[in-house]
Amino acid sequence: MYLNSVEKGRNIPIMTTPDQLLQALQNEIEKNTYGETPVELYEPIRYIMSLGGKRFRPLMTLMAASLYTDDWQKALKPAQAVEAFHNFTLMHDDIMDCAPLRRGRLTVHEKWNANIAILSGDVMLVRAYDLLLDVESDRIKRVLTRFNQTAAEVCEGQQWDMNFETRWDVTEAEYLHMIRLKTSVLLGFALEMGGIIGGADEQACSLLYEAGVSMGIGFQLKDDLLDVYGDPAKFGKQVGGDIIANKKTFLLIEALERAKGSAKAELDRWLAAEHFDSKEKVAAVTRIYDTLGIRKFTEQKIAEYFDKGFEYLEQVTADPTRKAPLMGFVHQLVEREA
Amino acid sequence: MYLNSVEKGRNIPIMTTPDQLLQALQNEIEKNTYGETPVELYEPIRYIMSLGGKRFRPLMTLMAASLYTDDWQKALKPAQAVEAFHNFTLMHDDIMDCAPLRRGRLTVHEKWNANIAILSGDVMLVRAYDLLLDVESDRIKRVLTRFNQTAAEVCEGQQWDMNFETRWDVTEAEYLHMIRLKTSVLLGFALEMGGIIGGADEQACSLLYEAGVSMGIGFQLKDDLLDVYGDPAKFGKQVGGDIIANKKTFLLIEALERAKGSAKAELDRWLAAEHFDSKEKVAAVTRIYDTLGIRKFTEQKIAEYFDKGFEYLEQVTADPTRKAPLMGFVHQLVEREA
Repeated sequence: MYLNSVEKGRNIPIMTTPDQLLQALQNEIEKNTYGETPVELYEPIRYIMSLGGKRFRPLMTLMAASLYTDDWQKALKPAQAVEAFHNFTLMHDDIMDCAPLRRGRLTVHEKWNANIAILSGDVMLVRAYDLLLDVESDRIKRVLTRFNQTAAEVCEGQQWDMNFETRWDVTEAEYLHMIRLKTSVLLGFALEMGGIIGGADEQACSLLYEAGVSMGIGFQLKDDLLDVYGDPAKFGKQVGGDIIANKKTFLLIEALERAKGSAKAELDRWLAAEHFDSKEKVAAVTRIYDTLGIRKFTEQKIAEYFDKGFEYLEQVTADPTRKAPLMGFVHQLVEREA
Repeated sequence: MYLNSVEKGRNIPIMTTPDQLLQALQNEIEKNTYGETPVELYEPIRYIMSLGGKRFRPLMTLMAASLYTDDWQKALKPAQAVEAFHNFTLMHDDIMDCAPLRRGRLTVHEKWNANIAILSGDVMLVRAYDLLLDVESDRIKRVLTRFNQTAAEVCEGQQWDMNFETRWDVTEAEYLHMIRLKTSVLLGFALEMGGIIGGADEQACSLLYEAGVSMGIGFQLKDDLLDVYGDPAKFGKQVGGDIIANKKTFLLIEALERAKGSAKAELDRWLAAEHFDSKEKVAAVTRIYDTLGIRKFTEQKIAEYFDKGFEYLEQVTADPTRKAPLMGFVHQLVEREA
């Protein structure tokens, strides 16, 4: 933490470290009960919010606000809205995907039932809007307009993702469009809203948004990559999980586009196999990816999106002292291996 | 329609009849596509909105706004938000209730599937918020604060309703609380928002809200009553449907509270019966209701809520010429038999 001091006649802003912002955010999230009765409606919200996660979306909001104001506290509730919205989408997506576990714990529809997961999710979305109303009055309409567009796009992304499940001809462009909507625009919005709340000008806000979207696509592609090539010791999940489940990741879509002849036949055989040894399938499909140069190509794509994201961030006009923590934090995220 | 004329030096407001308001509303609803792609997400929204319904909630918004302004057009989009929200709750409730039909047509989860009904519903709620952003900037926060509370309460009401399904000791007070939340607060909000948009003072807005809530409870109790005692020629649905399904209506809850001895034994026998002749069950349970004086008691309760609603409306300060159409319309609704 930089102390507030006067040095050579210049005010140095009171900076709060990402860790301190995260702590403030966690306290705020833990304090929120979302509602009281009926308990069947609100307990699942407290449950899913308590499962953790890195909270890096709301943290981005606080850090973006901190670029322009010392009063980042005024972004605390809106930042929480981003996290609540994200968890609302997880609660509903888990029903649609019939997912039994979320962060190693039972999903809401498994712990309670699908009806409760639908309705708790609904009220969670309403509570997210409530948290957004903490934005200063003269900025509410702007924030809500952007949030509504983002929220609708996230739903569109989820629908595209479901549509892709039964298609074998998904193109790279379609996949990138889907993950932009499903996962990246929310990160863009998180950063943009921080800028709006902090008082950034229009250009800075839109650069923050674009930076978030590019970074978000990079993060999703990296998730896809780590699922296959991650270090089992560092990667939280089972390496190869996506391959076992035939999940249409960037890697599989590229492989389906590129594979010819015997590689194509082998890939198709593994995709069609109903009974197989998991380890054998993961090894075989990984070998096909290797042969096709998918790893290198994906790494290049990831680097492109991260580079573009950093370019946007570099262009954001703000006090360099204030920008340093944000840049450092994003660098850390980019280099993570889990 | 009253013509805009100058009579004895006094401006007579340009009044628009409820029919004209309804027509304007229908046009607006039909024009709205809610979004384009993926079609799986937006087609179900257009479908459920096209199934009709009386649109009396959004009409109340327009009529309440008309109490204070000739520019009721500015309430058109927010009024539509009320209808979109209502249909969003129907779409999700139908999944939870496993309802095959809605207004005589397939429900969304039957015509498509449950996942599409969940996700289309989600985006429908987002679009409702979008429509609310059409409210003038200086009133948005107030409208959204009230809408958020209403929306959360509607979800709470649905959860109570689901909780009641497995309970046989639901009290009259619990039931009234449930229907207040599940169906009445939205009508209250519809009227209140019309007042806010029209420019009514705080007191008028809160009277409009209370009037809507009381009327809403009256309407729900009347639905419960008509299901048993309605004229089959006028009542749209099968008379006795609630009895056949053991639905916990106001009448059944009263009967469960009052029945003693042989009436209680007979009622319990019908409620437990798995195989029965529908007509016989409807006749038998209706006979029990008759014996217990349930019909009369329910009619009294309905009258009480309607009277209270009218009292609140009477107290709303507004030009009598402007109030007449609203009062007339509500009287019509109160007297409906379907």
